[in-house]
Amino acid sequence: MGESNETVKQFMIGQRGPVDHARREQILAAADEHFRHYGYSKTCVSDLARTIGVSSAYVYRFFESKQAIGEAVCSRALGRIDSALMEVANSKQPPAEQLRDLYNVLIEQGLALFFKERKLHEIVEVAASGNWCSTTNHAAALLEVVTKIVTNGRKSGAFERKTAIDKVCRAICTTLTPFVHPILLAQQDPKRLHEDARALSSLVLRSLAP
Amino acid sequence: MGESNETVKQFMIGQRGPVDHARREQILAAADEHFRHYGYSKTCVSDLARTIGVSSAYVYRFFESKQAIGEAVCSRALGRIDSALMEVANSKQPPAEQLRDLYNVLIEQGLALFFKERKLHEIVEVAASGNWCSTTNHAAALLEVVTKIVTNGRKSGAFERKTAIDKVCRAICTTLTPFVHPILLAQQDPKRLHEDARALSSLVLRSLAP
Repeated sequence: MGESNETVKQFMIGQRGPVDHARREQILAAADEHFRHYGYSKTCVSDLARTIGVSSAYVYRFFESKQAIGEAVCSRALGRIDSALMEVANSKQPPAEQLRDLYNVLIEQGLALFFKERKLHEIVEVAASGNWCSTTNHAAALLEVVTKIVTNGRKSGAFERKTAIDKVCRAICTTLTPFVHPILLAQQDPKRLHEDARALSSLVLRSLAP
Repeated sequence: MGESNETVKQFMIGQRGPVDHARREQILAAADEHFRHYGYSKTCVSDLARTIGVSSAYVYRFFESKQAIGEAVCSRALGRIDSALMEVANSKQPPAEQLRDLYNVLIEQGLALFFKERKLHEIVEVAASGNWCSTTNHAAALLEVVTKIVTNGRKSGAFERKTAIDKVCRAICTTLTPFVHPILLAQQDPKRLHEDARALSSLVLRSLAP
């Protein structure tokens, strides 16, 4: 319980007031709907306040700015991707398969966010270009997943153990860039993305051979 | 002579009229200056026409649209990067060093374009997001350089020869994404870019070990 609150707090920059307050949830639900429908840039804090029947000042008791609300909404969307990736790292699959799955799940989740939740995706774009805390957390989560998979592979003897693990994991994270960045993801043909991911994960697996 | 004209024609989509006409050069010089000074989006064909003292209709004899002029200006900027990279592939260095240099030269040239020619860079961004012919040519040039370096390494015995070369080269090109895309290049700290490139080229070299 204490630990899960820690995790929640990690995403809470710009938020204030009681953590588990029903109003906070109401504000986030209204924000989520508005951002999807009208887009992040066209939504004001006063629109959200009006929707749930409170004053803007009341909203500011929970979030210090529109960006803080945006970060919270964005954190949830990216958090869902992070959970799906952590499931890959915790699966019973051999580490080589986990690594391949990492690329595929990342593409699928990113495209789902882009194509099904188009307006929400715009917020991820804003977040990525503004270096929001939510995208920094996402990058940290990716590194954690990659480190877990590489550790699995080193333990089972499937991957080499000579190279410093932090360098290996960081380089692998850099290879994920074309599949992480919303602008790049949106520009590429999905079929092409999967082909690139296949060639790239094969290259990474050759580099990990013992 | 015939061959160099072929290469020129490759960049000539949307261009028309005599290839080696002095007016074409004048239009491109005026465009280059305007794009750097005022930015691509704020420049009209009529501004360029006025600058060199001709009518817009006259400019359209050489370029079918503002985008065609933009593509030509952009092709020249990216072409300079391509030449610097091809020099790396043609150098006397061992192939492993060529590969490391490829990342470094790409970052340096990209940053030079971004920081010293800020407004020109904006056009590369427009080009990259609009999938202009100039960026497609740039991607093709990158693949050519990578293929040359990998071929050098295979010939000298420094790199493995089992994996299909087109898959290897395509995957290496995908690893270049964070250093090619203007938006990503602009977002990262230069020191961080070089560190990422070092870790990544080490990973790629391990994957190429015979």
